[in-house]
Amino acid sequence: MHTVGRSWLLLTGFVLFYVIYLLVGALVFSSVERPVEEQLREEVEVLKQEFLNHSCVNAASLDSFLLKVLKANKYGVSVLRNSSVASNWDLASSMFFANTLVTTVGYGHTTPLSDNGKAFSILYALIGVPFTMLVLTACVQRIMHPLVLAPVGLLQRCGMQPRPATVVHFVLLLVLVVLCFFVAPAAVFSALEPAWSFLDGIYFCFISLCTIGLGDFVPATQPGQKYRALYQVSVMVYLFVGLMMMFLLLRTIHKMADLHGWTTFLQLPRCEESDMDEDREPIVEDGHEAQTPPFLTEKESSKPLEPGSQPSYNTINTG
Amino acid sequence: MHTVGRSWLLLTGFVLFYVIYLLVGALVFSSVERPVEEQLREEVEVLKQEFLNHSCVNAASLDSFLLKVLKANKYGVSVLRNSSVASNWDLASSMFFANTLVTTVGYGHTTPLSDNGKAFSILYALIGVPFTMLVLTACVQRIMHPLVLAPVGLLQRCGMQPRPATVVHFVLLLVLVVLCFFVAPAAVFSALEPAWSFLDGIYFCFISLCTIGLGDFVPATQPGQKYRALYQVSVMVYLFVGLMMMFLLLRTIHKMADLHGWTTFLQLPRCEESDMDEDREPIVEDGHEAQTPPFLTEKESSKPLEPGSQPSYNTINTG
Repeated sequence: MHTVGRSWLLLTGFVLFYVIYLLVGALVFSSVERPVEEQLREEVEVLKQEFLNHSCVNAASLDSFLLKVLKANKYGVSVLRNSSVASNWDLASSMFFANTLVTTVGYGHTTPLSDNGKAFSILYALIGVPFTMLVLTACVQRIMHPLVLAPVGLLQRCGMQPRPATVVHFVLLLVLVVLCFFVAPAAVFSALEPAWSFLDGIYFCFISLCTIGLGDFVPATQPGQKYRALYQVSVMVYLFVGLMMMFLLLRTIHKMADLHGWTTFLQLPRCEESDMDEDREPIVEDGHEAQTPPFLTEKESSKPLEPGSQPSYNTINTG
Repeated sequence: MHTVGRSWLLLTGFVLFYVIYLLVGALVFSSVERPVEEQLREEVEVLKQEFLNHSCVNAASLDSFLLKVLKANKYGVSVLRNSSVASNWDLASSMFFANTLVTTVGYGHTTPLSDNGKAFSILYALIGVPFTMLVLTACVQRIMHPLVLAPVGLLQRCGMQPRPATVVHFVLLLVLVVLCFFVAPAAVFSALEPAWSFLDGIYFCFISLCTIGLGDFVPATQPGQKYRALYQVSVMVYLFVGLMMMFLLLRTIHKMADLHGWTTFLQLPRCEESDMDEDREPIVEDGHEAQTPPFLTEKESSKPLEPGSQPSYNTINTG
């Protein structure tokens, strides 16, 4: 009962802190963004008044016109001439859209207009999202050895203890990922996209690789960009490899936290004690007994929680 | 060597199939959406011509005006009078935005305009995303017993075998989730949002609970909606509970697949055999020995891959 009580207390604390975190975030966003928004709002109002003063258009007909223009714009159709050349649904753009669906990034710069398109999006993501996660996990499984196990082993052979070795390795890996998947792409994007600053590039990389995908910055959407299809395919490859590295970082963090015993701080004890003794049946029909020591069962509930990590960890070389 | 070869072959097959899947998706989206887009494009062009014919505005000044209008619109500032009443950054809207950031849904209907806002978004998500996943996982751990373990146990006490019991339970749970988190909310949204059809509602629920968050349909963004703040908070609660149910479904699928041995079909054998004997060290400094049978170690690499599932499974009652 004591453990169950502590467990619920911890959860309540978490949920309370979550609500407070959202409130604090809301206050900061509100105070930072509202003045900028109001300024833009005033500018647009002035712009509209000026436009009306210098023309013979009346306000009602302009509003009716703008209503339709903005609606079309929402679906990626711009009223401006120069941007109406490239389609949002050519093959490369469609593939880019499909990619943002299955990786759950979902920028939303292009969205299906038709009911058929919406229905297909649902079906497509229903199969595509789990499949993409599977492919990403399988790829991470492959790069785990050269990028995590081997370097940690090397550090240990150089005389480091297992724990410091994992920390040093993690810091190096983090620096490598930040440089190769945030700083370098941000520099490339800010060079290729005329309107993007370096911060915009970093912001795009972060928002994309966290799969938030706000869509306020999407590469290869400006009219008249050269080699647009190639550019879009490159961004897709960047997104895939970048997500793979995010998964790798998460697995490395989880592994390191386990080794250092940090995860016990976050561990939420089980509240289903009654099932304890019924859980020990090994996986039925496991085709890989040769690789699986017989005492390893499915029971995992004693493991600490680690957000976003994948279930198939390879352990860091602790020899 | 044979296992390693098979493992790489499987991965190559996966990646190839992934590329094909993206191509097929691209072709379907392109063929479905392009005609609709072209029609809309023509309509906008006709609209613009009509507007120009019936007024004394010249094309160049209209284009320059529209360019600014569309840019402001991208940042959530509409030129239309009726919609300029409510701010995108009032407290409820900011909290809604913060919520879409930390859950990685990221509709992008509102986005930070200022550099400070962008930098804060990065920092906020960096802490918020893992924390949200932690809270979600902790909550799922709590509802696992009443919604999964207890019903499966009940079915077994009614005389069902463990495997059919898990299948029957999963189908019932799936129907319940689809009804309560897709069909019912879709009906509510299509009633509350004037422009939404029922399919739009389903589409919104699906795109949101998969954390894709395209943002073409976002509730509580129409001007003049009553109790807007309350509505936004309700959508936030819906998103949180809905994501919790998605996590629960994934865990139940993983558990069921393990029990039925289905996951062995997808299992990618390890390619780091050399580390096999070095992996068996138990978690150091584990503060929960009382709940952890001593033979349960950290070794997990023999487990099959399951996309998106969480590492802290509670086993289905197989007694």
